[in-house]
Amino acid sequence: MNAPSPASSPTAALLIIGNEILSGRTQDANLHAAATRLNAVGIVLKEVRVVADITADIVEAVNILRARYTYLFTTGGIGPTHDDITVDAIASAFGVGVEEHPDARALLTRYYGVENLTDARLRMARVPAGATLIDNPVSAAPGIKIANVYIMAGVPKIMQAMMDTIILTLRHGAKIHSRTLSAYIAESAIAHDFGAIAARYPQLDLGSYPWVKDARFGTALVSRGTDEQAVSQAADEIRQMVESRGADIIPWEG
Amino acid sequence: MNAPSPASSPTAALLIIGNEILSGRTQDANLHAAATRLNAVGIVLKEVRVVADITADIVEAVNILRARYTYLFTTGGIGPTHDDITVDAIASAFGVGVEEHPDARALLTRYYGVENLTDARLRMARVPAGATLIDNPVSAAPGIKIANVYIMAGVPKIMQAMMDTIILTLRHGAKIHSRTLSAYIAESAIAHDFGAIAARYPQLDLGSYPWVKDARFGTALVSRGTDEQAVSQAADEIRQMVESRGADIIPWEG
Repeated sequence: MNAPSPASSPTAALLIIGNEILSGRTQDANLHAAATRLNAVGIVLKEVRVVADITADIVEAVNILRARYTYLFTTGGIGPTHDDITVDAIASAFGVGVEEHPDARALLTRYYGVENLTDARLRMARVPAGATLIDNPVSAAPGIKIANVYIMAGVPKIMQAMMDTIILTLRHGAKIHSRTLSAYIAESAIAHDFGAIAARYPQLDLGSYPWVKDARFGTALVSRGTDEQAVSQAADEIRQMVESRGADIIPWEG
Repeated sequence: MNAPSPASSPTAALLIIGNEILSGRTQDANLHAAATRLNAVGIVLKEVRVVADITADIVEAVNILRARYTYLFTTGGIGPTHDDITVDAIASAFGVGVEEHPDARALLTRYYGVENLTDARLRMARVPAGATLIDNPVSAAPGIKIANVYIMAGVPKIMQAMMDTIILTLRHGAKIHSRTLSAYIAESAIAHDFGAIAARYPQLDLGSYPWVKDARFGTALVSRGTDEQAVSQAADEIRQMVESRGADIIPWEG
C-alpha cells in the first residue's frame, strides 16, 4: 500500500505501557484517541506498541521508537504507586537520572495542600533530568516532555487533554483528506477493479475494509491522501464502480 | 511490577497490521479480544504492535516477535485486494515462497462457486509455502498457520472465531486468578499502603488503575497471579486497607 503522506510529513509512534491492557482487564482507548488527533494535523502515526510494566521492555521500545520517528508518545505508568515505573525507565533510556521538578512539586502542593503532600504524591513530581512539564487540566500530576518523547497519563480523559495541549506545539504535516464509501458488497467482488483504480493513483492510500453486520457482508472503501483533488477523483471512480455493480451504497461517511 | 506468570507459561505477541488502525479510521477491537482469550488459558500476552501495510515493517516485526515469544498472532491484510500483503510479507519473513493451498482453493470454490472464482478471490488461497490452514466459520477465506505464527483476519467477528479455534490447539499455562476492588479513592491516597501489600506478595501482579467518572476520581486495585490463595489473601488485605480509609467501595467485579 502506498504512503498517504509526503516524505516531509512528521512521523510518530505511540507506546502504551501497562499490564492491564495486555491482560485484557482494560480495553485501551488511547490508541484511537492519539491516532485521530495526529491524523487531523498531518502527523503520520507509523507504529504502536503495547508493553508491560517491565523496565527493560520500556527502555528498549523507547530507544527504538524515539530514534525512528519524529515524535514518540507514551501513555501510562506515571502515577504514585509502586507499579508506576515509566519515569524511571525513560530516564534510564536516556541515560540520565531522575530529579524532582520544582514546578511539578508546586502544582502538587497547590492541589493536595502541603499537609497532604505525601511521599507517594511527590513521586508524581519526579522527572528524567532535563525534562519539562506538560499541562494536566484534569488533575494535578503533569505529563513530561524530554527531547522528542511525550510522557502522558494512561487515564483516557487525562491523556486526551494532555494530547490536545501537546498537538498545538508540534510540527504539523500536509493535511490528509479522506473519503469513504461503504456498501453491501463483498470485498472480493470489487477487488480487481479497486486495485485498478489504486494503480492509477499511486500518490494515494486506497484501502478496503470488509465488515459483517447482521450476517450481511459489506466493505468500506477509503480514498486517502494529501492531494485533495486526487482523493475526490478516486472517490468518484470508486462510487461509479460500486454503482455499476448495483450494490446498496450506504451514504458517504466523509 | 512482577510477572504474574510462572516462567514455564507460554508467551505470546499480537501484531495488528493495518493503515486503518493507525489513521484512526477504525477503532481496533482485536487487541482486547486476543488479550482476554489468551489470559483465560494462562498464555501471557507480552507485547502488541500495530504496523502499517508496508512489507518491510511487517517482516521486521514478524521476525522479532516470532523469535521472542512462544506464539505470534497477526490480524489483518489477508483479503483479496491490492493492499492485502500480509501473506507475501510473512512468507518473506520466513524466506519461503508463496503457493496456492489446495484445501483453501477447495473451500473458496465451494463458497463462491467455480464460475465466480476470480483471480482476486483466489488470492485468498495463497499461503507461505509449508503453511497449514485455520478454520474460518464465518466466511470462506481461511486463516493460516506457519510454525508458531497464526495469521488471522482483521474483521473482529472472523478474528474472534479463528482465535477460539486456535486456542484449543495451544499449550496452556497456569490458570491466572484475579480479584479487583474499585473504590472512590484517589490512587495517591493508597499508594503507600498498596505498595506495602505488593511488597509482601512478590509472586503476584498488584496493579492500581485510576479512573475519572462524573468528575469523581477513583481507583481499581487488582490482585492477579497464578497462586490462587495468595491472590485472595492480597485482595482481602486491599479491601481492609481501603475500608479503613472509609472510602466508598464499588461491589467486587471479580
